[in-house]
Amino acid sequence: MTEALVIHAPHELQVETRPVPSLTQGEVLVRVEAGGICGSDLHYYHHGGFGAVRLKHPMILGHEIAGRIADKAPDVTGLEIGDLVAVNPGLPCQHCRQCLAGRSNHCTDMRFYGSAMRNPHIDGAFRRDLVCKARQCVRAEHRTPAELALSEPFAVALHAVSRAGALMGKRVLVTGAGPIGALVALAARLNGACEVIVTDILDEPLAVVRQLGADRVINGRVAPQALTELAGSIDVLIECSGNEQALRSGLALMQPCGTIVQLGLGDDVTLPQSRIVTGELTWTGSFRFKEEFALAVTLIDSGKADLSALVTHRFALDQASAAFDLASDRRQAMKILLEF
Amino acid sequence: MTEALVIHAPHELQVETRPVPSLTQGEVLVRVEAGGICGSDLHYYHHGGFGAVRLKHPMILGHEIAGRIADKAPDVTGLEIGDLVAVNPGLPCQHCRQCLAGRSNHCTDMRFYGSAMRNPHIDGAFRRDLVCKARQCVRAEHRTPAELALSEPFAVALHAVSRAGALMGKRVLVTGAGPIGALVALAARLNGACEVIVTDILDEPLAVVRQLGADRVINGRVAPQALTELAGSIDVLIECSGNEQALRSGLALMQPCGTIVQLGLGDDVTLPQSRIVTGELTWTGSFRFKEEFALAVTLIDSGKADLSALVTHRFALDQASAAFDLASDRRQAMKILLEF
Amino acid sequence: MTEALVIHAPHELQVETRPVPSLTQGEVLVRVEAGGICGSDLHYYHHGGFGAVRLKHPMILGHEIAGRIADKAPDVTGLEIGDLVAVNPGLPCQHCRQCLAGRSNHCTDMRFYGSAMRNPHIDGAFRRDLVCKARQCVRAEHRTPAELALSEPFAVALHAVSRAGALMGKRVLVTGAGPIGALVALAARLNGACEVIVTDILDEPLAVVRQLGADRVINGRVAPQALTELAGSIDVLIECSGNEQALRSGLALMQPCGTIVQLGLGDDVTLPQSRIVTGELTWTGSFRFKEEFALAVTLIDSGKADLSALVTHRFALDQASAAFDLASDRRQAMKILLEF
Amino acid sequence: MTEALVIHAPHELQVETRPVPSLTQGEVLVRVEAGGICGSDLHYYHHGGFGAVRLKHPMILGHEIAGRIADKAPDVTGLEIGDLVAVNPGLPCQHCRQCLAGRSNHCTDMRFYGSAMRNPHIDGAFRRDLVCKARQCVRAEHRTPAELALSEPFAVALHAVSRAGALMGKRVLVTGAGPIGALVALAARLNGACEVIVTDILDEPLAVVRQLGADRVINGRVAPQALTELAGSIDVLIECSGNEQALRSGLALMQPCGTIVQLGLGDDVTLPQSRIVTGELTWTGSFRFKEEFALAVTLIDSGKADLSALVTHRFALDQASAAFDLASDRRQAMKILLEF
Repeated sequence: MTEALVIHAPHELQVETRPVPSLTQGEVLVRVEAGGICGSDLHYYHHGGFGAVRLKHPMILGHEIAGRIADKAPDVTGLEIGDLVAVNPGLPCQHCRQCLAGRSNHCTDMRFYGSAMRNPHIDGAFRRDLVCKARQCVRAEHRTPAELALSEPFAVALHAVSRAGALMGKRVLVTGAGPIGALVALAARLNGACEVIVTDILDEPLAVVRQLGADRVINGRVAPQALTELAGSIDVLIECSGNEQALRSGLALMQPCGTIVQLGLGDDVTLPQSRIVTGELTWTGSFRFKEEFALAVTLIDSGKADLSALVTHRFALDQASAAFDLASDRRQAMKILLEF
Repeated sequence: MTEALVIHAPHELQVETRPVPSLTQGEVLVRVEAGGICGSDLHYYHHGGFGAVRLKHPMILGHEIAGRIADKAPDVTGLEIGDLVAVNPGLPCQHCRQCLAGRSNHCTDMRFYGSAMRNPHIDGAFRRDLVCKARQCVRAEHRTPAELALSEPFAVALHAVSRAGALMGKRVLVTGAGPIGALVALAARLNGACEVIVTDILDEPLAVVRQLGADRVINGRVAPQALTELAGSIDVLIECSGNEQALRSGLALMQPCGTIVQLGLGDDVTLPQSRIVTGELTWTGSFRFKEEFALAVTLIDSGKADLSALVTHRFALDQASAAFDLASDRRQAMKILLEF
Repeated sequence: MTEALVIHAPHELQVETRPVPSLTQGEVLVRVEAGGICGSDLHYYHHGGFGAVRLKHPMILGHEIAGRIADKAPDVTGLEIGDLVAVNPGLPCQHCRQCLAGRSNHCTDMRFYGSAMRNPHIDGAFRRDLVCKARQCVRAEHRTPAELALSEPFAVALHAVSRAGALMGKRVLVTGAGPIGALVALAARLNGACEVIVTDILDEPLAVVRQLGADRVINGRVAPQALTELAGSIDVLIECSGNEQALRSGLALMQPCGTIVQLGLGDDVTLPQSRIVTGELTWTGSFRFKEEFALAVTLIDSGKADLSALVTHRFALDQASAAFDLASDRRQAMKILLEF
Repeated sequence: MTEALVIHAPHELQVETRPVPSLTQGEVLVRVEAGGICGSDLHYYHHGGFGAVRLKHPMILGHEIAGRIADKAPDVTGLEIGDLVAVNPGLPCQHCRQCLAGRSNHCTDMRFYGSAMRNPHIDGAFRRDLVCKARQCVRAEHRTPAELALSEPFAVALHAVSRAGALMGKRVLVTGAGPIGALVALAARLNGACEVIVTDILDEPLAVVRQLGADRVINGRVAPQALTELAGSIDVLIECSGNEQALRSGLALMQPCGTIVQLGLGDDVTLPQSRIVTGELTWTGSFRFKEEFALAVTLIDSGKADLSALVTHRFALDQASAAFDLASDRRQAMKILLEF
């Protein structure tokens, strides 16, 4: 038996005990040590879901985790007991048309931890002992589980950046300074952006983003003219807020033939069709990640990506409700970790 | 002196005489023989403009023309008197940053015939005698001026198709069976699309498009389920109507990672942000053309692109008002030519 | 038992009887009706292999075939007895890293018909009755097995063309007018090349290529100056001869930033490094095909690609040696089919 | 009058006085303060040229320079006297077809400092006072002329890296640890390469490259097996030596579909055609640079690219011969600067 963090309904989180299945071929047992609270976890916590995705039964939350190998099936090679690993929360089927076309993030039979997209839901990874496939584990050596638990959101950021093509010499604007926006800013800088500017309407997260390596931050509420002055100069916009106004304002700042990557998930947005046409702008979505998960682990583990400034708080598993409450306060919290 | 078709206000077209300037360096005199009426001409005729672009003074209309060289400045080489030519209505400056980056369609000092975007407006090419730069003229040999007058809208279609990348083996949906949609369908077929499907809400233009080479046409009003059955199967959508509903319906039919090229110019459109994100769809604008003008002439002149089915009516210059009135009737007219 | 065409050593072809295995899950029995003789078949016939690939034991030849479904395992859906099918001769593993990255033509565990690359060799498909996977079969409706047997080499041609990126408006030179060069010329035309020029040193195959749709053919031995006049004007060269001289001459004709696709398989070639550097030329290989096999069947079956001019001779299976002897005579033979 | 470094014949360098032309429209006078000795300068010095490019008359050398604005024509804006500038040694015509297609590095009327490609040759920039176009000058603020003189070779490196497309997560091998190889390694790291490995046959330059930020260096003469172990793992090879053996060895290490950027300029090279074909490898040239010059200045001036470890020696102008002699000793010298 192991402890797991289960959501029953909005604001109803409970630590419960659950059985640990025995290992079958290709599986390992991971002793989870750290887990990051993600925006989608918060949507389940506050609203019971988002859009058409709704909790229909209790579900273990969580998909940003790292830990150590505690056991493994006899056929597993390349992983030893005690190894530090980040766990990829997505398990594509590897045989559908999308997987075979190199688009595993669009797998038509994807199993993703802590997601109510399917019914029954796929339980998440906020549990002390997790049985998963060995191929979900990426080994690290130098960092802590706390740092490696950021691999998943960093993979999301790296994938978004990859959607914009080569960034060499580009001026990149990131709208929304939440954890994802912050990681996108860092990912853009690591991939050749000449200047990375981040905008938000709160100073506190912008200060964290500045520390993580943004060249410049702008509080659009306090200094709207600083944004206006960028008109016509942005090559790439990575929209991380899901906010319609952020997207519309950003459109006005783009160079001809510029690219807008949409990562933030909002409702319907109303956009000026003629601006897209006459500016030959490109608006493109970014969804989850593919091989970027292993890259995220490598960059964190090698120290090339130092994400430590992102973690503002840590809570023990039995303080999860307090952690979730605080995580929604953008003035105080960026990334909050649970420790198991 | 020469005759020109001048618009003074909505529905006020007059044939007037205008002086013919003498030739300076690099210029030729073109005896215009045929001109096509374009959607933007119709906007000036019916509404005095579109969006923020408004007629502020009388302007000669027209930008789809072909004719023969009648005279040339002494320094002009490569063109002889009597040569059949299509005239490129756009004159980029060739020294701004956009021109030098290979994006002459975004020239910051573009002069485009028959356009009220600048003030004073740039007069158009619906006149018997036109003085233009030799570099605007593309020589042809085998076809008639009437066929070559379609070079400009065909260039617009070719550019839109190029914005979608290589089409080999792709299933392409074209929404809107106006003259541009029809030319886009043909351009897609010529560039490797495996199947080209065109949708509209009127049967008459769809019949013309079928004749031009679309593999399949669907009247979305009559047979909406035929569109619905395409869900998840469209690789490339080229939106030529500017209609919000066409775009929204099309989005629902796209494959993961599909591309939507926006060519139709409408008002604000409301789109589902989450569909863009989770499908990793790309929505990209297409504006005018670049080297596709010369390509359009080549394809028409060599017979590889047979556009003759597109021209439904021809009028003499002094019947221009009747021509413009008929051109707006989508059940009767596709492309209407003026003969000079 | 069924009859099969077995090669034992150079010039030793025999029709032998072989057992037909019973069907297992996902398999079908195909009654083979037509098979094309490929250049690699000829290498085995004349030289016992090519490069490091050598016959180590008798092997059934052949990988360009079409026929009809004669039986199927109970679990197979989407195919019925009597269906006309082209059979994809390559069976990638679908789970190696290359397959999952969308590069199944680089599958590290590929099984390809009639190939001595692996040991034991993979037997080929020149047999009256062939048991294969249902997923290797692409259904057709309108053409004959003889036409559909060309799907495999046409897929090779389509893949090569796709390696050059979008061809819209490009001038394409094809060096080598063998069956593959001829199919590449057609594939380039279908995918938007503005002008397709084919060169060879024999008039007879050039005449066939002209018939298949090349805009222009040049006998480089008879009219070398016609090639020289193209200097600096070629956007894309698709090298189908494997001949060093053809490649070197072609390099001299390229535009800055042009692309050379290498499809012909020759020995070491000596190239001017400085020409690659200062012209920023790109030389890229093309190997087999991926989803282009299904596209080839679609294009042939729909009549968009009419390959009939390519087939110069047909032989019964028991005349195979005569067929192979004739197939090497480039003045007489383009594609030779075996009929079963 | 000003002093200039003139080459008359191999090993015949002289400091001579030359007139300073008066400024015409769009021109500035630059007081040159530092100049880097390039490999091509060394070819003129040792061999009187390279390939077909040969000195036909005395020529001022040099094209890697920085200094301060000393005077300007009245119409020049954006530059003030005293401004620190790096000078772009290439002056494309801006109106040929290549320039207008965004390929100014292939300008058919390029004027490039210190080059014998044209006749009469274009004099170089190793002179105390240089009159050039204002548009050749890129302003800097924070660094010294010595650091900014590296802008030109760094632009070459950035352009080479851009030729490989997005490098996110890629393993990059750089062959040749000269100044250009060293700058390429740094440029690859700044643009997202996950791991940058540099190989050479001398330890001394490899030590400098390690300091500049390569993840790993391999002396291929001392530890050939370390290279062999990389077989099949290299995504991008950037060949900076011009050496045939380096290129051939590198080919053997590539992943399927990998890219080799050729920057080193050597003689004819003999390559295995079948390796290009079956591995679908891409070999592409890189020549000079375009907008990367301004980017190089920005990266140096902002401190994002710290190139200081590259400069091993500095000489006064009147010690130029000693400087040139030392610059060819790869065990001692990486980049040598002349101070004016």
